[in-house]
Amino acid sequence: MTQNPRIRGVLAPVVTPFAAGLAPDPERFVAHCRWLLSQGCKLAVFGTNSEANSLSMDERIALLETLLEAGIDPASMMPGTGSCALPDAVQLTTRATRAGCAGVLMLPPFYYKDVSEEGLFRFFSETIEQVGDARLRIYLYHIPQVAIVGITPGLVERLLARYPTAIAGMKDSSGDWNNTRTMLDNFSASGFDVFVGSESFLLTNMKQGGAGCISATANVNPAAIDRLFRTWQESDADEQQRQLDDVRRTVGQAVMLPALKAVIARYSNDPGWKTVRPPLEELSAAQLQDLYQGLDALGFAMPGIGGQ
Amino acid sequence: MTQNPRIRGVLAPVVTPFAAGLAPDPERFVAHCRWLLSQGCKLAVFGTNSEANSLSMDERIALLETLLEAGIDPASMMPGTGSCALPDAVQLTTRATRAGCAGVLMLPPFYYKDVSEEGLFRFFSETIEQVGDARLRIYLYHIPQVAIVGITPGLVERLLARYPTAIAGMKDSSGDWNNTRTMLDNFSASGFDVFVGSESFLLTNMKQGGAGCISATANVNPAAIDRLFRTWQESDADEQQRQLDDVRRTVGQAVMLPALKAVIARYSNDPGWKTVRPPLEELSAAQLQDLYQGLDALGFAMPGIGGQ
Repeated sequence: MTQNPRIRGVLAPVVTPFAAGLAPDPERFVAHCRWLLSQGCKLAVFGTNSEANSLSMDERIALLETLLEAGIDPASMMPGTGSCALPDAVQLTTRATRAGCAGVLMLPPFYYKDVSEEGLFRFFSETIEQVGDARLRIYLYHIPQVAIVGITPGLVERLLARYPTAIAGMKDSSGDWNNTRTMLDNFSASGFDVFVGSESFLLTNMKQGGAGCISATANVNPAAIDRLFRTWQESDADEQQRQLDDVRRTVGQAVMLPALKAVIARYSNDPGWKTVRPPLEELSAAQLQDLYQGLDALGFAMPGIGGQ
Repeated sequence: MTQNPRIRGVLAPVVTPFAAGLAPDPERFVAHCRWLLSQGCKLAVFGTNSEANSLSMDERIALLETLLEAGIDPASMMPGTGSCALPDAVQLTTRATRAGCAGVLMLPPFYYKDVSEEGLFRFFSETIEQVGDARLRIYLYHIPQVAIVGITPGLVERLLARYPTAIAGMKDSSGDWNNTRTMLDNFSASGFDVFVGSESFLLTNMKQGGAGCISATANVNPAAIDRLFRTWQESDADEQQRQLDDVRRTVGQAVMLPALKAVIARYSNDPGWKTVRPPLEELSAAQLQDLYQGLDALGFAMPGIGGQ
C-alpha cells in the first residue's frame, strides 16, 4: 500500500457553527470548510477553537460524516480525536483513520492532573493498539494552558521509539518557542512534524524545519498565512509575518473564539455565525466595535466568504 | 406530587471496576453498590474517584441502567452528570432524574479555563431548562485542584436566585474549610445542602449545619464514616474523627484512586478489582506493601465485602 505524503502547511481548527437551539449547523460548517480549502488552508476540525469538547461524541461523528458525504477530501483533514475517555478517543480516531484522514490531532486525557508519563504513554499506546490501523497518523496536541496536562519531550521520545510510524508529529500551542525548539531539535530529524499553534511562530518554525501551523486565526486569514508558508524563503517574509501578527493581535484582543465567529459573521453577512455554546460567551457590543474598527484600520477582508 | 426528602449522610463516589480489556464490569459494580448500601452508605456513582470522565457517555448510561435493573433504589443515588459538553450533561441528567435519583452531582464544564461566571451560569441554566423536570435536584461539584474551573459563591447565589428548587446543594472538595464555611454561612439557611468532599471535615461540617460528606474513602470505610454522621453529637465524636482520619491518611498516602481499588481487591480476595484505566496507574508493589502494612497496623477490616 502506498502511503499518502504527510500533511503539511496551514490548518484551521475549524470553528463549529450552531443553529437555533445550539445544535451544530452542518450547512454552515461545510460552506466554511469549502471556503478554507479555496484559500489554501487545510482542516483541523474538532480543535480547541472548534468547541470540540463542547460537542458530544455523536455530534462530532455526525459532523465528520457530513464533511465526507459533502465530498471534502479526507486527505485535507486532521480531526481532533483526543478525549478524557479511552473508548471515545478510540472510536473517533478509528472513524477518521478508516475514512482516510491525513492524521488525527490528539489531546492527552485532561481531567486528572498530575498523571504520570507512564499513564499517558499507556493511554496513547492503548489507543494505537485498539485502532489497529497501519494508516493511523497521530499528531500530539500540547496546549498546557488549557488542558493543563501536557505532552513532554520524554513522552514523545517513548512513543516515537515504540510507534515510529503512528506517531507523526505534534501541535505545540504552548506559545513557548523554547519548547517548540526542543521538540524540533530532538525529534524532527526522525520525521516528526512540528506544527506551531499560532502563525506568530510560523516563519521561525519554517526556518527551523517545522511543518507549518494549526492556528485559530487561519479561520479568518487563511490565504495570507498560507502565502507565508509557501514563500517563507522570499525577501518579504519578515514583512508578511508582521502583517499576520497585526491581524492576529486585532482578532485576539478580547477572546479569540467568539471573535473568530464574530469576524466570520460580519464578513459573510450572517449574524447566526456568532453563536457559541456555554460556558463560552459572545463578545459584548463594545468588544465587537473595537474588533471591527481594528480590522477596518488594517484594511482586512475575507474575499469570497459567504459566497460573495 | 410529594417530593422525596433531600438526600443526606455519607455517599461514596463508587469506584468503577473493569474487566479484562478495560471494559466496565457490571457484576462487580452492582455487588460493590449493594455492599456500600448494607453499610449505611449511599451512592455518588460517576464521581472523580469513579473514573467517570474515563468512561464514555454510553458506558455511564449502561451502568446506570444496570443498577436500576438490579433493583438499587434510585433514592439512594446521586450520579455525577457534569460534562464539558452541554448535550452530554443534559442527556445523563435527564436519565437520572426520570429514574428518580435523589439528585445529580454536576462538575462545571472543565475544558476551557478562565471562563466567566456568566458563561457557567448559562451552562447550568441551559441544562436545567433542557432537562425540564421539576424533580431535578442539582448538587454543584467544586473540585478546583482537578477541574481547575470552580464553583464560586457568586455563581451559587445567581443560580439559587433563579432556580431555588433545582439547585439543591454542593459538594466542596476543595479541602479548604474557609470555602466550605463561606458556602454554609451564605446559603445553608435557604436549604442549600453542603457536603464536604472528605470525611476529615465531617464533624466540623455537621457542627456547622452541613448535610454530610461524599468521600472517596467511603468506598472502603463506609460504616465508620456513617456512624460519625449519625452520632456526631455524642461524646466520642472527636475520637471517631481521629480514627477516620487515620484510615484516610493510610489509604491516601500514595494515590487515592488506585489505592481504593487495591484495598477492595485485598479484602474481597479479588485481584481483578485493581485494574484502572489509563491515564491512571495501579500502585507499585512497594506502594501496595506500605498500604497493606498501614491498614494492618490500624486493625482495618471490611466486614462482609466480597460476600464473606
